[in-house]
Amino acid sequence: MSSMWGERLRLSIFGESHGAGIGVVLDGLPAGEPIDYDEILPQMARRASSGGKISTPRHEVDMPEVLSGIFNGRTDGSPLCAIMRNTDVRSKDYDRIRLVPRPGHADYTAYMRTGGFNDYRGGGHFSGRLTAPMVFAGSVCRQILSRRGVEIGAHLLSVAGVSDASFDAAHIPPTLLLRLSSEAFPLLEPGAQAAMRQAVEKAANEEDSVGGIVECAAVGLSAGLGSPIFGGVENRLASILFGIPAVKGIEFGAGFAAAGLRGSENNDSFIYESGEVKTAANHHGGLLGGITSSMPVVFRVAFKPTPSIRQKQQSVDLEKKSQVELEVTGRHDPCVAIRALPVVEALTAVCLLDLVMEG
Amino acid sequence: MSSMWGERLRLSIFGESHGAGIGVVLDGLPAGEPIDYDEILPQMARRASSGGKISTPRHEVDMPEVLSGIFNGRTDGSPLCAIMRNTDVRSKDYDRIRLVPRPGHADYTAYMRTGGFNDYRGGGHFSGRLTAPMVFAGSVCRQILSRRGVEIGAHLLSVAGVSDASFDAAHIPPTLLLRLSSEAFPLLEPGAQAAMRQAVEKAANEEDSVGGIVECAAVGLSAGLGSPIFGGVENRLASILFGIPAVKGIEFGAGFAAAGLRGSENNDSFIYESGEVKTAANHHGGLLGGITSSMPVVFRVAFKPTPSIRQKQQSVDLEKKSQVELEVTGRHDPCVAIRALPVVEALTAVCLLDLVMEG
Amino acid sequence: MSSMWGERLRLSIFGESHGAGIGVVLDGLPAGEPIDYDEILPQMARRASSGGKISTPRHEVDMPEVLSGIFNGRTDGSPLCAIMRNTDVRSKDYDRIRLVPRPGHADYTAYMRTGGFNDYRGGGHFSGRLTAPMVFAGSVCRQILSRRGVEIGAHLLSVAGVSDASFDAAHIPPTLLLRLSSEAFPLLEPGAQAAMRQAVEKAANEEDSVGGIVECAAVGLSAGLGSPIFGGVENRLASILFGIPAVKGIEFGAGFAAAGLRGSENNDSFIYESGEVKTAANHHGGLLGGITSSMPVVFRVAFKPTPSIRQKQQSVDLEKKSQVELEVTGRHDPCVAIRALPVVEALTAVCLLDLVMEG
Amino acid sequence: MSSMWGERLRLSIFGESHGAGIGVVLDGLPAGEPIDYDEILPQMARRASSGGKISTPRHEVDMPEVLSGIFNGRTDGSPLCAIMRNTDVRSKDYDRIRLVPRPGHADYTAYMRTGGFNDYRGGGHFSGRLTAPMVFAGSVCRQILSRRGVEIGAHLLSVAGVSDASFDAAHIPPTLLLRLSSEAFPLLEPGAQAAMRQAVEKAANEEDSVGGIVECAAVGLSAGLGSPIFGGVENRLASILFGIPAVKGIEFGAGFAAAGLRGSENNDSFIYESGEVKTAANHHGGLLGGITSSMPVVFRVAFKPTPSIRQKQQSVDLEKKSQVELEVTGRHDPCVAIRALPVVEALTAVCLLDLVMEG
Repeated sequence: MSSMWGERLRLSIFGESHGAGIGVVLDGLPAGEPIDYDEILPQMARRASSGGKISTPRHEVDMPEVLSGIFNGRTDGSPLCAIMRNTDVRSKDYDRIRLVPRPGHADYTAYMRTGGFNDYRGGGHFSGRLTAPMVFAGSVCRQILSRRGVEIGAHLLSVAGVSDASFDAAHIPPTLLLRLSSEAFPLLEPGAQAAMRQAVEKAANEEDSVGGIVECAAVGLSAGLGSPIFGGVENRLASILFGIPAVKGIEFGAGFAAAGLRGSENNDSFIYESGEVKTAANHHGGLLGGITSSMPVVFRVAFKPTPSIRQKQQSVDLEKKSQVELEVTGRHDPCVAIRALPVVEALTAVCLLDLVMEG
Repeated sequence: MSSMWGERLRLSIFGESHGAGIGVVLDGLPAGEPIDYDEILPQMARRASSGGKISTPRHEVDMPEVLSGIFNGRTDGSPLCAIMRNTDVRSKDYDRIRLVPRPGHADYTAYMRTGGFNDYRGGGHFSGRLTAPMVFAGSVCRQILSRRGVEIGAHLLSVAGVSDASFDAAHIPPTLLLRLSSEAFPLLEPGAQAAMRQAVEKAANEEDSVGGIVECAAVGLSAGLGSPIFGGVENRLASILFGIPAVKGIEFGAGFAAAGLRGSENNDSFIYESGEVKTAANHHGGLLGGITSSMPVVFRVAFKPTPSIRQKQQSVDLEKKSQVELEVTGRHDPCVAIRALPVVEALTAVCLLDLVMEG
Repeated sequence: MSSMWGERLRLSIFGESHGAGIGVVLDGLPAGEPIDYDEILPQMARRASSGGKISTPRHEVDMPEVLSGIFNGRTDGSPLCAIMRNTDVRSKDYDRIRLVPRPGHADYTAYMRTGGFNDYRGGGHFSGRLTAPMVFAGSVCRQILSRRGVEIGAHLLSVAGVSDASFDAAHIPPTLLLRLSSEAFPLLEPGAQAAMRQAVEKAANEEDSVGGIVECAAVGLSAGLGSPIFGGVENRLASILFGIPAVKGIEFGAGFAAAGLRGSENNDSFIYESGEVKTAANHHGGLLGGITSSMPVVFRVAFKPTPSIRQKQQSVDLEKKSQVELEVTGRHDPCVAIRALPVVEALTAVCLLDLVMEG
Repeated sequence: MSSMWGERLRLSIFGESHGAGIGVVLDGLPAGEPIDYDEILPQMARRASSGGKISTPRHEVDMPEVLSGIFNGRTDGSPLCAIMRNTDVRSKDYDRIRLVPRPGHADYTAYMRTGGFNDYRGGGHFSGRLTAPMVFAGSVCRQILSRRGVEIGAHLLSVAGVSDASFDAAHIPPTLLLRLSSEAFPLLEPGAQAAMRQAVEKAANEEDSVGGIVECAAVGLSAGLGSPIFGGVENRLASILFGIPAVKGIEFGAGFAAAGLRGSENNDSFIYESGEVKTAANHHGGLLGGITSSMPVVFRVAFKPTPSIRQKQQSVDLEKKSQVELEVTGRHDPCVAIRALPVVEALTAVCLLDLVMEG
């Protein structure tokens, strides 16, 4: 395991934040699938900027260039590679972090892993910028899934402690997911946006940052997908979603709250609905024994607050072996969860296309 | 992905609850490691029974028989296989569930996955009984890890809504983990046991069940272990731990709570301690960018309440396509989290030995 | 990679020649496939003894015990594990080889790999005995393949320098493969058997051994199976077949002889035959670019002569670091190729079932 | 398995012959290794043209652009991606082959695999052009291996039926391999070149092509590398080397000839040489039980004649379902084995670096 994921459908992510370029190889896609470039760019845009005052001012022109795998507008059965050039790079902003690791970032652990040979500029390979090729890959997979009746969408369940409503997990219409996955700031209750933005801006004004929780759902998966024990859908989704920087937790269905329920509350009764087996409620998040039940797959992903903050922080100088005070310059999102939301959708799409192809 | 896990160190779990036997293959262990059988059996016993009134009355003689991989008391560099016979099996208890799936169990999803050819007796391959070979494998790996200075231990952070204290994540002595991992009902504050047991028994008396949260820690891992993006320690631990039945969530360090913190609170300052880089607090759970920081790796695993309850439940008859009322007979643990705790430790040991061997 | 093989259908081989037992886990089989035990045992018997004077006198009762994965006579979608006990073991025969490696065996390399901790008795995990579970697994896969129209069979193309005819690679009827795969000494020209056996016996009488070449074919594979570059059928078959001890080469279609042909000779013209695309000849061995063409897949596997011979040989004492003369006692097959033939068929079946399931 | 290879060190090859570009991702390289670009280009040049009259006139400017993974001249522990643009592309040359597959090529099988959606121009993803990124990756790995004392080199054992001498497998000096791996037409007996070139030109003049055999060796590998059964070095090398187009066979050590030897001839006596265990001869090709013995690893790879020939050939029209005569235009190497030789060395380097890293 590494920057590659998967067994049938394989995803390889490469690049560093301030190197020549970043990109993705997606190997194992079905052949003959039309890929609409115009559906990909809006997803890239959602990730690149969360709109309004809270987004990063670094404006990459994230126009992915497809090098291979698409022929006459369709997947051609060979690996799809897309690359993005790094531009608008201010490397000098990052010079100091080589030996003075930023708290909350992977600077120190990357240094130790590579014996100090990592590209430390802007976080290098650990940068959030690496989520751009993930979104590209996910947008490709989502188009293929959509033709198979599977839709994916997420909303900001909480930002800076301000909450949206939760999914009604047993009743999630595809149209809702289509709406959410087209928005820059997707909420079940759009009215929550103002309070959320206000809380984020307040933190930013105080040279601080905030975390958030993304709740994601997928509908249209038939019953019986997945494999036992380590091949369960939870195992797979977790193994790919922890690939997004700043993710610190994942839960399915009732999740951690299930630990406080009684079995009589948490068990979902089976019912017949239009001749199909369904469950009355959906505490199980569409997954029993790791296998799909045909109910919506619902999960939540916790994002820590952006580690880059303007406040002075305590760190060490790895060369001088001394305590130092660190001021992180540059401009950063005060809330990574917002821009990370389309990445959650994207990697979910990669994982579920693999699942559907497994059959 | 399937009932096999891993790339270097590989774990294969096989068997059904009411078949001839269950077992494990562990391929890729280092050669020459002494394996003390007497350290394995107590771990098997922890899993087999949580002690007192709350354990299952089904008493398997879980004496694993080693078929291969150990020679003259040491690992010999070839795959280790151990098997356990199934005895004390009351298959008739389960006859009805073939066509009437139990709510909260994998009966229905397994049926759909296999076209109805699954061994449904006692949950078959999805049974909690399959955790016995996991504990065996983990006990082997733990002995090897311990010689490399890595110790693992877990406690019941909450059971039936009754809470234990949390780890002081920045200061976890190995001796504490050694104590916890030797107990049947491990708690940081042993005084919580009475209230927990009482809450479990109350639920059992009401023909119901409860969930719980296991908090696990590993100390002694050097900084720099793990790989970027999909090869992070979070990805790996999650990919194996969701292999335990009833797990619905996992979080590292501050986890979901981090989503409500400010960056200035959640970021852990780097400090020098006895000449080594450490962090003042440990909200990051020992992992930054998925790579170890040398601080304790701390995570929590949420278990749903035991799905088997004596109360009548609503289900369907898959053949008659009708709604039916189901009474689950047999005797079951009212709280799987307790017996699952040593399984969390065990699979963590498998995962971390793989990590340490990767170097 | 290790003693496990595969990505979808996974094969795990465990055990040592003189340990408690050996066996196999086959994970990823389709569910609902009837498995006829009576078809498996004859294949086990083919491997256990090549009949007549040339077989080993060690008679294992190779009755595999199925521990899991089969329910009511059918695969149940969970891992199939079968084990075989080691009996009739004369470990003292092998005491000396611990420090005096036998030429041509893996004794020395296993010693170096494991730091001397390997189970050296009878070759341990490297023993030809480990091919028994391979044949079991292959017999299971073959039954499933046969229902999908795929048949596999092999013959002894050469033994001790005595040759059989070669397959007419463009015209291999399934019935021929069914005959070959049911025989103990399969030949296209049965008349060659006498000369082959004579040559083997002559070598045995001279305390020596001989090699051989197995030619194997598979028919019934539709066109378009396999993946590009490293996922080609040649890559996959080679990656599994070199798992049989004593294999030193593999070639597909015209193979090494193709290196001496002109393109105009080696290229196979496409033709229509009963409305289907075929090729006039079959120098390509059913594989172009690693992908099946629907023509018979034909390949040859070279086996070196049995390394165990009664003649005195030169070796070293690894402890005394001195040159010594070694006499290998015990009784051994003078030609492994004969007993290895059903193993070639078996692993081919495992590989091709995986291929067919990939679709 | 697919266009990706490997478990620790992973190789991903992407691109089509006439698409926008081709390239490679190499994930899992050790960090801190200096990479000298000037050592890579000569290897690219060896592959791009075999010199003299026998090379293809298509002159790609194969300047690989490194997008990631190298920082300040050294590997930085993140995936290395290099891309090459396709230029000098004459796509109209290939228009006809979409529906009229060229004999000996993957046109038909790729068509069947992808339902006709493959990029057929110039063989698409199956083109020999995809070997350019393989050589790039191999040149990187070779530099790292060389610093660990491992050298790799190959020579043309036979071309068009004209033979070079064979390696003296027990005595291969690293300097010999360094010479061979720097030449465009490497031979043990350089005098054979004239006759080989003459035979190739004769075939070319007759609008035909020829095959060849590449013999490759690696020295400097310590004893004990590799894993049992399916993890043997033979399994691994075969699994990667069959990724080179036109390979139809591979043999190790004495290979197919071993099938005709007696055990007393083929077994290699162990001896002490300067205090180290060696073997007197090297029929085993440096591998016993798939594990390295510290003797040179020696193997041969058979290449079929170039399938593209100017002579008229018989094929089919897949749309009209009729027999047609096909004339392959464009200009092609009459002997792929010559240009493929550095590719054999390159993929061997990738495989052996993975092996050495496994330790």
